[in-house]
Amino acid sequence: MSQNTFGRLFRVTTWGESHGAMIGCVVDGCPPLIPITEAEIQHFLDKRKPGTSRFTTQRREPDEVKIMSGVFPNDAGVQVTTGAPISLIIENKDQRSKDYGAIADSFRPGHADFTYQSKYGIRDYRGGGRSSARETAMRVAAGAVARKVVPQISIRGALVQVGPHRIDRTRWDWDEVGNNPFFCPDAEAAQQWADYLDGVRKAGSSTGAVIEIEASGVPAGLGEPLFSRLDQDIASAMMSIPAVKGVEIGAGFAAAALSGEDNADEIRIEDGKPSFLSNNAGGVLGGISTGQTVVARFAVKPTSSILTPRRTIDKHGRETEIVTKGRHDPCVGIRAVPVGEAMMALVLADHSLRRRGQIG
Amino acid sequence: MSQNTFGRLFRVTTWGESHGAMIGCVVDGCPPLIPITEAEIQHFLDKRKPGTSRFTTQRREPDEVKIMSGVFPNDAGVQVTTGAPISLIIENKDQRSKDYGAIADSFRPGHADFTYQSKYGIRDYRGGGRSSARETAMRVAAGAVARKVVPQISIRGALVQVGPHRIDRTRWDWDEVGNNPFFCPDAEAAQQWADYLDGVRKAGSSTGAVIEIEASGVPAGLGEPLFSRLDQDIASAMMSIPAVKGVEIGAGFAAAALSGEDNADEIRIEDGKPSFLSNNAGGVLGGISTGQTVVARFAVKPTSSILTPRRTIDKHGRETEIVTKGRHDPCVGIRAVPVGEAMMALVLADHSLRRRGQIG
Amino acid sequence: MSQNTFGRLFRVTTWGESHGAMIGCVVDGCPPLIPITEAEIQHFLDKRKPGTSRFTTQRREPDEVKIMSGVFPNDAGVQVTTGAPISLIIENKDQRSKDYGAIADSFRPGHADFTYQSKYGIRDYRGGGRSSARETAMRVAAGAVARKVVPQISIRGALVQVGPHRIDRTRWDWDEVGNNPFFCPDAEAAQQWADYLDGVRKAGSSTGAVIEIEASGVPAGLGEPLFSRLDQDIASAMMSIPAVKGVEIGAGFAAAALSGEDNADEIRIEDGKPSFLSNNAGGVLGGISTGQTVVARFAVKPTSSILTPRRTIDKHGRETEIVTKGRHDPCVGIRAVPVGEAMMALVLADHSLRRRGQIG
Amino acid sequence: MSQNTFGRLFRVTTWGESHGAMIGCVVDGCPPLIPITEAEIQHFLDKRKPGTSRFTTQRREPDEVKIMSGVFPNDAGVQVTTGAPISLIIENKDQRSKDYGAIADSFRPGHADFTYQSKYGIRDYRGGGRSSARETAMRVAAGAVARKVVPQISIRGALVQVGPHRIDRTRWDWDEVGNNPFFCPDAEAAQQWADYLDGVRKAGSSTGAVIEIEASGVPAGLGEPLFSRLDQDIASAMMSIPAVKGVEIGAGFAAAALSGEDNADEIRIEDGKPSFLSNNAGGVLGGISTGQTVVARFAVKPTSSILTPRRTIDKHGRETEIVTKGRHDPCVGIRAVPVGEAMMALVLADHSLRRRGQIG
Repeated sequence: MSQNTFGRLFRVTTWGESHGAMIGCVVDGCPPLIPITEAEIQHFLDKRKPGTSRFTTQRREPDEVKIMSGVFPNDAGVQVTTGAPISLIIENKDQRSKDYGAIADSFRPGHADFTYQSKYGIRDYRGGGRSSARETAMRVAAGAVARKVVPQISIRGALVQVGPHRIDRTRWDWDEVGNNPFFCPDAEAAQQWADYLDGVRKAGSSTGAVIEIEASGVPAGLGEPLFSRLDQDIASAMMSIPAVKGVEIGAGFAAAALSGEDNADEIRIEDGKPSFLSNNAGGVLGGISTGQTVVARFAVKPTSSILTPRRTIDKHGRETEIVTKGRHDPCVGIRAVPVGEAMMALVLADHSLRRRGQIG
Repeated sequence: MSQNTFGRLFRVTTWGESHGAMIGCVVDGCPPLIPITEAEIQHFLDKRKPGTSRFTTQRREPDEVKIMSGVFPNDAGVQVTTGAPISLIIENKDQRSKDYGAIADSFRPGHADFTYQSKYGIRDYRGGGRSSARETAMRVAAGAVARKVVPQISIRGALVQVGPHRIDRTRWDWDEVGNNPFFCPDAEAAQQWADYLDGVRKAGSSTGAVIEIEASGVPAGLGEPLFSRLDQDIASAMMSIPAVKGVEIGAGFAAAALSGEDNADEIRIEDGKPSFLSNNAGGVLGGISTGQTVVARFAVKPTSSILTPRRTIDKHGRETEIVTKGRHDPCVGIRAVPVGEAMMALVLADHSLRRRGQIG
Repeated sequence: MSQNTFGRLFRVTTWGESHGAMIGCVVDGCPPLIPITEAEIQHFLDKRKPGTSRFTTQRREPDEVKIMSGVFPNDAGVQVTTGAPISLIIENKDQRSKDYGAIADSFRPGHADFTYQSKYGIRDYRGGGRSSARETAMRVAAGAVARKVVPQISIRGALVQVGPHRIDRTRWDWDEVGNNPFFCPDAEAAQQWADYLDGVRKAGSSTGAVIEIEASGVPAGLGEPLFSRLDQDIASAMMSIPAVKGVEIGAGFAAAALSGEDNADEIRIEDGKPSFLSNNAGGVLGGISTGQTVVARFAVKPTSSILTPRRTIDKHGRETEIVTKGRHDPCVGIRAVPVGEAMMALVLADHSLRRRGQIG
Repeated sequence: MSQNTFGRLFRVTTWGESHGAMIGCVVDGCPPLIPITEAEIQHFLDKRKPGTSRFTTQRREPDEVKIMSGVFPNDAGVQVTTGAPISLIIENKDQRSKDYGAIADSFRPGHADFTYQSKYGIRDYRGGGRSSARETAMRVAAGAVARKVVPQISIRGALVQVGPHRIDRTRWDWDEVGNNPFFCPDAEAAQQWADYLDGVRKAGSSTGAVIEIEASGVPAGLGEPLFSRLDQDIASAMMSIPAVKGVEIGAGFAAAALSGEDNADEIRIEDGKPSFLSNNAGGVLGGISTGQTVVARFAVKPTSSILTPRRTIDKHGRETEIVTKGRHDPCVGIRAVPVGEAMMALVLADHSLRRRGQIG
């Protein structure tokens, strides 16, 4: 877990800038003999791809992934992992040449411009450079590999709040998630959000969102008890996604208002196996998975690129104003759903490998 | 960040069980020549110490820390760090001998009993063993050392919600924090909480809480931009505290409902230096500190040890009921305040050292 | 692998100074349910203990180890590991009070005095402080735990050279190793060394040595192929022992003079299993164990504490002379044998756990 | 230090196979604002490039490196590092299509074939796949970046032994190193080696070698005292190079035969600075640099690819014979010189960054 690498035994190192020739990642620690194709990875990239509806950026990126190493045909001719590092690359296609004048010198409020300049004394300002959400494409690609490491685990995500508008959880229907451009499990809310976001988009404004990710089929016993707890690593993973400002597990912040009686999940035996009567724990107790569904939520702030002029300073320390033109997501939270799924997959693949190294 | 070690350059490894002879930690990576005494560490331990009011566990632990290594008198005779690992120990004094019958075999709902047994096939059930919140004493001790590594940074915490009762932020007064047994910055709320918690305690129940930690004097440029972001590592740190279920930075979950205009903190020049007009970012942009006050909040679930019988199973897979007698905190969130401060100190000390290794 | 921690999944963090109250270590990542007693650890400590013959330092240290955490009786009442960190301590008993005048200010040639002062600006000069070989007692203790993690692997070591005097490998007899104070497998050489070392000792001089460690029962497949190779990690482990200046695997430096025909170990099938016709590889090919005996050798320089006055400087930058009085080993290489065995055990335990996390 | 990543603060992750489309590496942790061009990296790659004389493999690889990320023009228009990960790639050009029949199934003695198959159950056998020395091209590329991080340190290497033939150290002349195809500092020895290697090559045989690397300008204080010692990390680095079987620092194995008087380097003051009268320590005491020249040597075994038929087994467990045809180095030790230099640069860049994080 450092700089551009995520994970401990199953590790991903991402590289590349928004407007460079390509972006990429190296997936290291992947077990051998796992069948994997570019198409399988592409499937998840297509969910995150820009330009799939009017509610996301209109940048046109096919986001075609290529596997450059780490795979080889097995005796049956099926391409499988070899245990060597898997290098994935995506060429950048739609880096429009344009004048970066204002952005090159001034710091867009809410963006990483000021902090990158403070830390490094230089920044690739083209499209946000390294701090662009474009980097998350490689997380999704790596997450697709991670899913294959833990095939018994099923991971899915949904948008549960856009701006001030939450879904009605009693209407939750996973099948609806693919029926609207928001990954929304509540058909009615999706309708409402479409209207709301059209208004936001036309106003050149933006809005935040809350995403919920769940993983079922997680065996009991994943996670380390003190540091590198499963919930800790999930929180770390979600918080590493650009624009995320909060994360919670199970009942989350609502647990603060509960009594001990209401919060602690009672246990029974069902079909000969331990069964919990509720899941306020979100599938994690003492940092270790219980075998229940793991549930995490995270909040994404509104896109900082907006058409309203904002007060800021430039790199020479002069006060100025800035408007961020360009092709931006009115709600980056939407495309954060497949990214959140990918991060969950990375954490669970990593802890599954760690778990193997922990058994006596 | 692994198992029992937290941090990368400034690292803490904790060890010990609730009812063993002693608990301890090793602080590694501490720079040399920093004056440090047992009394300075004790000061913070005393804030976390059990039994200081009727609202915390009545276990009587003096929690006296001893420095076993890593310090030596400098030429002026002042005890300073030498760069060698600092070993700290605390002897356990009040491990009452008692019959652990029920707890030894049955899993207390909400506790780590079930998951430890699932993961390890054995657990030290005496007082929760390794999963006891007693371990956090060593975090507080290590945090006291961390504070000395970043003397220009000031870290303080407060309880902002107990059960459903939040403070009124307009009444926030840091000076009040030391005037009540709750680290509450709102004198009126503290009054209300005392009544509320007396009821909870007498009912043998428990309740959750929300803690807010802020760090001022943090220079711009701390944190790594993709992974090991400052906010990510703070989230990871807070989520590693037992019973924490959610964490947020700056505006946190509320950011989801904001517009881009309202959320992004505008920048001006004041006294020749960059100055932000608001702090929704909580002092972090793009994973890197802005120079503003760093603000984090985390939610603690209600203590799972309660007097009401709860349904559960034992380690033989039989259904049973359990009542957790003993000397428990009705609201563990209270004593989590100094722990949260310590975790913030550990993250900032670590990132301060990392920062030095990043400059060109 | 950092500062005071060795290993990746099976990790040891050592702490303490030569003349402090105690030294200790924390063993983290040890799988649960492994029976372990203080007596089992003590067995290996007794091999390294000072004062067992006239050829080692006359400091009187019982080196009694105590287990402070991480163990608990299983259902059968046998003390086993719990998966929690194992804290081991040894109290220092024979730190003679004495005047450290000269050593406190002047840098003993060949010792770490000059470099500690350069790096840290301070040093605990009492008996070498943190740089004392006393630290290796904790490696031996941790190594004893590591051996229990890989019970199918047998590790043993021998001294094969003292000063310019090598053993005759045709006389190698493992049973002789316990029959002389040198861990020497060649009875005749042991005789010769005794005379030689008596001369060295009486002259107040010292001499170097070469140690050979072998591990049998190592399964094929341990080690990572590029970095963290098995031979790389063994080299790293041995080189981390104070005073070691060289390390080699299998044929080692002699391999440079061989032809490809003579060096590459041919393979046959014996009893249905792969069998190598020679072992120039020392049990490692491409960084991964072959299943053959793993063989490593390392060279220890002569003790730098000698009675002959040596030219040096003091911490004020003044030229001076120094004589290192005290109770020193004329050949520290002797007591390095159990230390080398312990380091081999630590590497193999770590890689055995890593191996589990690598299988598809 | 794990699997395919080397280093702690300055980290390199290599990827790619001998006969894939490309090989590459990601350099992470490089400080910003360092001017770097492809030509500067190419300079070192050209020293390692195959086919530069009849004494190395005749594979024709231009080994042209491209920088894919992590650089940007500064205000003066000079391309500098940005602090973002630096992705370097080299396309493979001369992967001759051929029949891999025998190699695909049988294990070449001395190669990693058997161990890769044991560990992973599959291997990319084309040209050795991941275990090919081709991977070291990326180490050389990364090492070129590392050199720019520590511009005050000068690193150079030489071949000091080929087969049984050593140089005469009294004839050592660094200027000769570029005058012969062996990086040999002794013109006479180079002559002798040419004849010797012609014989080896014509016989379809191979031979080993010893390489010496020195680094001058290393400040005192680099290295950590217990684990991650400077000499330990150098040993680890050199041992991670394919085919290396031994490594030593300073006097190395010869130190075993020395007396304490002869071995310990005395210290004087010269020009107001500490000055050592000898350098048996090889620039490292107690794991920390002394400020003297750091000196390391490592032994490379003979190339395992030879024309003489060797006994081996195939992956079905059948006994067979194998001849390794193809374009091989009769002495891989020659091209190991720039690789050893690169590994030294990686270690010193890493420790220089670590050093900054250690100062009080």
